[in-house]
Amino acid sequence: MIIVMKPGTHESDIHEVSKVLESLGLGIHISKGTERTIIGVIGDKRVLNDVPLELMPGVEKLVPIVESYKLAGKTFKPEPSVVDVKGVKIGGKELVMMAGPCAVESREQILEAAAAVKKSGAQFLRGGAFKPRTSPYAFQGLEEEGLKLLKEAQEATGLLLITEVTSEKAVEIADRYVDMFQIGARNVQNFQLLREIGRSKKPALLKRGPSTTIDEWLNAAEYIMSEGNYDVVLCERGIRTFETATRNTLDLSAVPVVKNNSHLPIIVDPSHAAGKTQYISSLSKAAIAAGADGLIIEVHPNPRCALSDAAQQLTPESFDNLCSDISKMADILGREFRYAR
Amino acid sequence: MIIVMKPGTHESDIHEVSKVLESLGLGIHISKGTERTIIGVIGDKRVLNDVPLELMPGVEKLVPIVESYKLAGKTFKPEPSVVDVKGVKIGGKELVMMAGPCAVESREQILEAAAAVKKSGAQFLRGGAFKPRTSPYAFQGLEEEGLKLLKEAQEATGLLLITEVTSEKAVEIADRYVDMFQIGARNVQNFQLLREIGRSKKPALLKRGPSTTIDEWLNAAEYIMSEGNYDVVLCERGIRTFETATRNTLDLSAVPVVKNNSHLPIIVDPSHAAGKTQYISSLSKAAIAAGADGLIIEVHPNPRCALSDAAQQLTPESFDNLCSDISKMADILGREFRYAR
Amino acid sequence: MIIVMKPGTHESDIHEVSKVLESLGLGIHISKGTERTIIGVIGDKRVLNDVPLELMPGVEKLVPIVESYKLAGKTFKPEPSVVDVKGVKIGGKELVMMAGPCAVESREQILEAAAAVKKSGAQFLRGGAFKPRTSPYAFQGLEEEGLKLLKEAQEATGLLLITEVTSEKAVEIADRYVDMFQIGARNVQNFQLLREIGRSKKPALLKRGPSTTIDEWLNAAEYIMSEGNYDVVLCERGIRTFETATRNTLDLSAVPVVKNNSHLPIIVDPSHAAGKTQYISSLSKAAIAAGADGLIIEVHPNPRCALSDAAQQLTPESFDNLCSDISKMADILGREFRYAR
Amino acid sequence: MIIVMKPGTHESDIHEVSKVLESLGLGIHISKGTERTIIGVIGDKRVLNDVPLELMPGVEKLVPIVESYKLAGKTFKPEPSVVDVKGVKIGGKELVMMAGPCAVESREQILEAAAAVKKSGAQFLRGGAFKPRTSPYAFQGLEEEGLKLLKEAQEATGLLLITEVTSEKAVEIADRYVDMFQIGARNVQNFQLLREIGRSKKPALLKRGPSTTIDEWLNAAEYIMSEGNYDVVLCERGIRTFETATRNTLDLSAVPVVKNNSHLPIIVDPSHAAGKTQYISSLSKAAIAAGADGLIIEVHPNPRCALSDAAQQLTPESFDNLCSDISKMADILGREFRYAR
Repeated sequence: MIIVMKPGTHESDIHEVSKVLESLGLGIHISKGTERTIIGVIGDKRVLNDVPLELMPGVEKLVPIVESYKLAGKTFKPEPSVVDVKGVKIGGKELVMMAGPCAVESREQILEAAAAVKKSGAQFLRGGAFKPRTSPYAFQGLEEEGLKLLKEAQEATGLLLITEVTSEKAVEIADRYVDMFQIGARNVQNFQLLREIGRSKKPALLKRGPSTTIDEWLNAAEYIMSEGNYDVVLCERGIRTFETATRNTLDLSAVPVVKNNSHLPIIVDPSHAAGKTQYISSLSKAAIAAGADGLIIEVHPNPRCALSDAAQQLTPESFDNLCSDISKMADILGREFRYAR
Repeated sequence: MIIVMKPGTHESDIHEVSKVLESLGLGIHISKGTERTIIGVIGDKRVLNDVPLELMPGVEKLVPIVESYKLAGKTFKPEPSVVDVKGVKIGGKELVMMAGPCAVESREQILEAAAAVKKSGAQFLRGGAFKPRTSPYAFQGLEEEGLKLLKEAQEATGLLLITEVTSEKAVEIADRYVDMFQIGARNVQNFQLLREIGRSKKPALLKRGPSTTIDEWLNAAEYIMSEGNYDVVLCERGIRTFETATRNTLDLSAVPVVKNNSHLPIIVDPSHAAGKTQYISSLSKAAIAAGADGLIIEVHPNPRCALSDAAQQLTPESFDNLCSDISKMADILGREFRYAR
Repeated sequence: MIIVMKPGTHESDIHEVSKVLESLGLGIHISKGTERTIIGVIGDKRVLNDVPLELMPGVEKLVPIVESYKLAGKTFKPEPSVVDVKGVKIGGKELVMMAGPCAVESREQILEAAAAVKKSGAQFLRGGAFKPRTSPYAFQGLEEEGLKLLKEAQEATGLLLITEVTSEKAVEIADRYVDMFQIGARNVQNFQLLREIGRSKKPALLKRGPSTTIDEWLNAAEYIMSEGNYDVVLCERGIRTFETATRNTLDLSAVPVVKNNSHLPIIVDPSHAAGKTQYISSLSKAAIAAGADGLIIEVHPNPRCALSDAAQQLTPESFDNLCSDISKMADILGREFRYAR
Repeated sequence: MIIVMKPGTHESDIHEVSKVLESLGLGIHISKGTERTIIGVIGDKRVLNDVPLELMPGVEKLVPIVESYKLAGKTFKPEPSVVDVKGVKIGGKELVMMAGPCAVESREQILEAAAAVKKSGAQFLRGGAFKPRTSPYAFQGLEEEGLKLLKEAQEATGLLLITEVTSEKAVEIADRYVDMFQIGARNVQNFQLLREIGRSKKPALLKRGPSTTIDEWLNAAEYIMSEGNYDVVLCERGIRTFETATRNTLDLSAVPVVKNNSHLPIIVDPSHAAGKTQYISSLSKAAIAAGADGLIIEVHPNPRCALSDAAQQLTPESFDNLCSDISKMADILGREFRYAR
């Protein structure tokens, strides 16, 4: 970290700041410029987390030099991590496809969806049992009943299961049914929930929040990892901007940026970003071309009858076409995807 | 709601959509334009919440005409609501001042802060016991120990107490100590928590999220109200934009917009918006001039020693000056504020 | 357009609005809902551009149903447009690559850049002669001298030329040298300049502004087209958001959205979006996978010596690798790109 | 500026960077941390504007310590500037009110508007003669004819005149009629135009662009000032965010931030920010309470007949009420405003 002092600061103020830093075991380097003096701080800056240096006399601002997360960062672990979920490896050569309906609605619906996505090559079945909805009057999910139906679909197809958890209680219940937890965009800074998942030791898919910077997102991953659970996969799903033509603005730059700053795998959710089925195929291919390790896509056997987010769920036919395209692209990009397994 | 059909849609598609609407007990009005046909929908549109009209053949888009919340809206209750917290009325003529440190840190600190803000005219003492922090390595709050210290400060000063709750468990604990719950910006769409607070029947201060539209914010209030708790006060605290000179961009337009669309009271938090003490006085005065019903401000007896958000906490002296200014402005604006009670 | 009347509006106000619409030759359709009356307007709404209906008594709001542009829209021309620049077709099966340095700096630099990008398969040489820079103290371009050097590079390689024009005077000068004008992001709503280019009849590349919605961008294209110049190509180059890890947030959803709403070709500029060379290859491939008709990329024979935007210019080697990758992807996507022509 | 080197950089790379800096006459300070080495740069960094240090081997990133503008900054001139326009002082104790219609439409309209705003206390008459409009089919202004009508209104009332200029030609024409130029939000980075106004030596009101940071805005002011015209007044008018309840999000924090970083006066335009008359009074009072030096407000004798931006123009009556309120607030805030002069 760099401490920038105000123009014309007294020597005594500089001395005062230096003393505090030294008392915390940090090294310092003072550099006097034509207008300002700056103080470089050397050592583990986490001891400074709760020290309000910016309020000391003469201090103009603090400039962080290294990122605020540690376990999630490339400096801590330079080689890419592979998260192994019962044999399916996320972050390796193979592309991972998670697919299924927005919400589990009925036995028939989830069994039909599972059979369809399995056939096109998906390794994971997704399906919401606990649904966070903007309006309290909208469908809120089948809860444990939905998880049982997911389990039945798993028995029929062998697909791995992933579902969103929205509270500590949901974690406890879902833990008995699914292979991977999903933390939704609205909960990316629900730190209580992140810690709970950290303690659970089950692999977690951490969606980016609509107004979360990549830096804050990696700090959210750090919450899970700091509890000892290192099996975290990131998921870009669009950020909130001024543009209203799509539900959110898919930030595909996040893929190379995350690959540059972190060792964690990253997949992309084009369904929530676009909000409209006609854009999902384009954005899915773009995500894979950008270097994503996989996709999570909403597929419904009969989207017109869906109880939530109908406009963004693909039909099994469209999903199958997309998987076929992805499979062809995978080769060119040095990846692998077994279409129609 | 208006349903816009695509150019050149078949009569049969229009007929199909009409049939669905009529089967749900809704009235329709068909209007054929030069390029498109539109269908006006008449009746309580909440029956459409889970019907994916946008996927029916021929449908181009749906255009909502009325807001999606009901209990929080002006149509439901045209006159302004006053939330009465043990005799202190929020939303009436009197301006309400909530003040205190970001986090409760020690007995001495909270007692000193309470005495100071009481003297300048505050009616509420604020102080965080459960602190949501971006980094897992930062100070996370004293939890129940902090609430006990708040209670002691209340006994010494008679101030009402408000604290942030971050989980169902925190609600349960805090319920025994404080007079009003605060839902923080990161939890504005933590629907589980909103429902829990709705069931608690204790008055709640609902902060706007950094990327929440005013419409979504009023829907979050609706979650609390739909459980039977109508004592909701809104709090604008800045939204996330591209500008980095301030921590967030305080959206003071939200004050007249909320007053126009809702009957709920609204106060403003300049501390989190600005992130720097030197801007808090300007923004506080601006908030009151814009029509806010009060302020919530961070005050620390010794900001330089604060364990969190040090840069945005006022000294008791600065806070006292601000209260004196607010008191003078109140008269001009037809409000009331008893400075130095 | 739909006119939504306030709840409880008098019949006479509805009558008044209807009269104004009918006097302008528009048809109307009145629909009375349970809470509000709405008036559907039928006919060419451009006659309403300067009529402030929203101020008439009883009017709550206006809801546009069709887009505000006409010549740029799919309704006006459903099949995709191909812009032919001296035989190179933008928007057809072939992908178009425009490449070259941010700014023309010297004879040696531009000749070397031209030879390199030609060799890898580019059809256009780009190079700034008039440079808009945030700070007045930064390098501002060689102006006409730069255009002469571009011309010389064209003679040596046969590449087509494109350059940014920043004023009417620049249009007049550049018209004598280049094959296509570029309108930069900062000038997307410089309507004087847009009209001037409309009158020039030379093909134009219209960059999206950092805070321009897709709708406003198509209206900017409409300015050029309404003067009779239909040879407009759009260029997505990133929008301004809260994220600071990249210079701008590349909005690749804009590619399928533009293809859905407009017949105009669209290419992508990953250099300005990313601002850092290490992300350009990923984003270029993503843009092509999303369906873009081409790319415009900054390439400098010696980026370390560049006089502007050094951090985002590729070396000829990196550019060559990228072209090779794009060429392989083109086949899979049903497009064509002749690498190393 | 601070240069942060990558972890594990070779001594020789550090040496190389140091050599370049020293060759440019800059001082350096090397500080070796536990993970990274950083190099502090001492001296006038403007010599580095065109040196791509970020591309040198081993360099991770550059961290600016001081702002990029000079003449517009507080370091250059610590005391506030007062811009004197023919005796009316902007930035002094007196609040300045600029008012008038969005566009000059007719002789009758502008004379009526001028008489009204003069009566309520305005010192400036505003009125657009060159109108930048999103759609090419909307009213574009009366051009020189409009300026002549403004002049006539000046003769009748003695008000000073301000009008927006959108091109070098408009500057040339308007220069013969008005007392102050306005640079609109869309032209804040039209550098050609800024330089032209810098050369004109006439006072200029520089609006903030919808996606311009405060730092870029002060750099735009620097363009004007670097040509020798120091009479620049800034005008906050709202930025583009995700919120759609108002046309733009008025960023009132910009007022204290500008006062902190620059010596230039700043006024506020609530009309374009709100886009709706019902919010203008609240926001105007908030702007003054935040410390603005004045306001620019759209007033139309008959808003319902306005040819542009009808929804945001106040009636003379509403404007008069607002001026009365502002006058009362002025005293409390230590300012002055002569209502109904």
